[in-house]
Amino acid sequence: MDQTLRNHANAIVSAAIRAVQPDEAVNRALAGKTFPGRVILVAAGKAAWQMAKAAQDTLGDRIDRGIILTKYDHVKGPVGKLICREAGHPIPDENSFLGTEQALALTENLTKQDTVLFLLSGGGSALFEKPLIPGQELQDITSQLLACGAEITEMNTIRKRLSAVKGGRFAQHCAPAQVYAIVLSDILGDPLDMIASGPACPDSSTCVEALAIAEKYSLKLSAEARALLQQETPKALGNVTTQITGSVRQLCAAAAKSCRELGYEPVLLTDQLCCQAKEAGSFLASVLKTHAGQGKSLAFIAGGETVVQLTGTGLGGRNQELALAAAAGIEGIPGAAVFSVGSDGTDGPTDAAGGYTDYETAATLRKQGIQIFEVLQNNDAYHALACCDGLIITGPTGTNVNDVAVALLRNH
Amino acid sequence: MDQTLRNHANAIVSAAIRAVQPDEAVNRALAGKTFPGRVILVAAGKAAWQMAKAAQDTLGDRIDRGIILTKYDHVKGPVGKLICREAGHPIPDENSFLGTEQALALTENLTKQDTVLFLLSGGGSALFEKPLIPGQELQDITSQLLACGAEITEMNTIRKRLSAVKGGRFAQHCAPAQVYAIVLSDILGDPLDMIASGPACPDSSTCVEALAIAEKYSLKLSAEARALLQQETPKALGNVTTQITGSVRQLCAAAAKSCRELGYEPVLLTDQLCCQAKEAGSFLASVLKTHAGQGKSLAFIAGGETVVQLTGTGLGGRNQELALAAAAGIEGIPGAAVFSVGSDGTDGPTDAAGGYTDYETAATLRKQGIQIFEVLQNNDAYHALACCDGLIITGPTGTNVNDVAVALLRNH
Repeated sequence: MDQTLRNHANAIVSAAIRAVQPDEAVNRALAGKTFPGRVILVAAGKAAWQMAKAAQDTLGDRIDRGIILTKYDHVKGPVGKLICREAGHPIPDENSFLGTEQALALTENLTKQDTVLFLLSGGGSALFEKPLIPGQELQDITSQLLACGAEITEMNTIRKRLSAVKGGRFAQHCAPAQVYAIVLSDILGDPLDMIASGPACPDSSTCVEALAIAEKYSLKLSAEARALLQQETPKALGNVTTQITGSVRQLCAAAAKSCRELGYEPVLLTDQLCCQAKEAGSFLASVLKTHAGQGKSLAFIAGGETVVQLTGTGLGGRNQELALAAAAGIEGIPGAAVFSVGSDGTDGPTDAAGGYTDYETAATLRKQGIQIFEVLQNNDAYHALACCDGLIITGPTGTNVNDVAVALLRNH
Repeated sequence: MDQTLRNHANAIVSAAIRAVQPDEAVNRALAGKTFPGRVILVAAGKAAWQMAKAAQDTLGDRIDRGIILTKYDHVKGPVGKLICREAGHPIPDENSFLGTEQALALTENLTKQDTVLFLLSGGGSALFEKPLIPGQELQDITSQLLACGAEITEMNTIRKRLSAVKGGRFAQHCAPAQVYAIVLSDILGDPLDMIASGPACPDSSTCVEALAIAEKYSLKLSAEARALLQQETPKALGNVTTQITGSVRQLCAAAAKSCRELGYEPVLLTDQLCCQAKEAGSFLASVLKTHAGQGKSLAFIAGGETVVQLTGTGLGGRNQELALAAAAGIEGIPGAAVFSVGSDGTDGPTDAAGGYTDYETAATLRKQGIQIFEVLQNNDAYHALACCDGLIITGPTGTNVNDVAVALLRNH
């Protein structure tokens, strides 16, 4: 292993993940921001506590009242005078509904001068919810959708219409107050109306689409639910300002900045990667092969969320597979390294955030009788990377804005 | 379909393939070149006739004598006073050996002033061959290697040592004459010692590697052949100048030039792509998604040779799969198109050179009840592309320097 490259990789990973921490993200969005009237805070999602904490640290007494709605075990202590509520995820439960009722009560009868500071993160769909049908039926429909493999966008199109807060309805409820939404995005491309089902975003999905999805998956629905699918969501909202402040875009931008500081010229290839993990690794290796030996230090950056094709029974994750697959292609190219990490610090069912390989990795593994091709066939990247010090371990990071892969080419 | 984008794609494909035609390639390499003494021409490979024809047209009477060694049905008429010989490919036959004997006779007893103009293209391994073991045994060993799935580099490492011309031995034979080699490369990265097994290139492979390959595949070898595997090939050659003039690199460069002329800023991602075709298409679509809407016209170029994973029984080829897979990702992105072609004009077992898709393709197919995901599962890209005018048909081009894929983003 090339220790300089490995040190650079570690530095880039740290800087990128630091930039998308909920507190950093909230601080960026609140910097220089002032509010004319009362500020009512509503934080929902898996990172709600961290986001609310950052807002509290910045705004202090300017916060009039508010509530944190997050997943069980995610409240780490009291935050000012905010109400803290934990609830079920990914399937909403009674505590989700009670917490959301409280949020709605806190944001009733506001004036035009008031601002609802709405801090949204992944998991908000389940955690911020007031169903228009009995909770039991909503849970049942969510379970049906999960069981039949519906896509997240399809699930949201249905759930928006069964909810008093999703699909822009929460912002409608807050009017005439302004809603200042700060969003930590875990969906590629940051489709605002899909993140937590867009409580403060005009809804682009339609009743026609909702009914088509119900048919496609043969959903069992009550007459009441079926009627709600035909009630349209708001298509325009005049009282909302949104800042997407933590997303894979920022993750990539922060990685690029760190690369530049270390002397690499950064090239952002994509922040919407969604192909097979090991093929992405091969692609990045091909990029390095072509640009090798040109006397430049380069860093190609690809953010997103790759997928793993399961063909074996080994241990690994998409970031580890990507890095290991690249190792075969970059063998012997001086100064070449590829690494990939999940911003949440967890890659697949492992204790690693991702993997690192460089131009020496393939030879190192071969000497131990380990063939990269076979390891990938068995989806066992974790154990191979463990044999060449290629695991990147960060521990849980408290954020989740997908992954970033970096292909480095260091000119000596 | 966006007709402007389609027209641009056609223009870029034409320009790229034109630049790697054997005659263009030879003309480039001979431009301004003079030879002090006699010129003896030896052309070997599938493009030997075209390359020799171009040299004859340029040099005329300066060519003292020479020979063309190509595949059956590849001689298209007499070329000056050159001997024309057709022979077996991919397995060498008696005509390969006889032709090569003639080439060796023509290049005997030369002086330091003389030049052997050596025109090499794909297929040269079989077509330019003088075995040091009986022809029958060489054919048998080649068949064994093909049957057990040996890689091309492994096959060449073995064959070089069983040959009087490969692994630099032809250039050794020509000394003290100069050898001016013009090479049309069909191997990614242009490893000179591997193209046609490198008759005019110092050999980087070793006897130790050759014996390891023989063991790996349990090759059946005579004692004579086994002894030859232990005779080392030349590691340095002082009388050789080589011009790689047609290769996937030139294919990509010509595509880039054409893109620039059409108003796109070209970005060469790689000329050594080797991952799965449909995953490469997805990757390129992700690149376009990220760069869309920035007010720039961009062209991302990826050359190489992708692979197809067979999961169905449809009709298609790697270039068609790449383009079709990209269609899913670029749907609805104004000005986005992805196309990919094989420079030989033949993609898989089809009459198409490759495929074209753009931001409208997915919707066009959906209206006809065609799901891209299902088509790719069935490896049936040809029929889907035929339904949306997405096939690129060039006919056989007379060259073969792998493929080029281009992802266009046109700013309106």
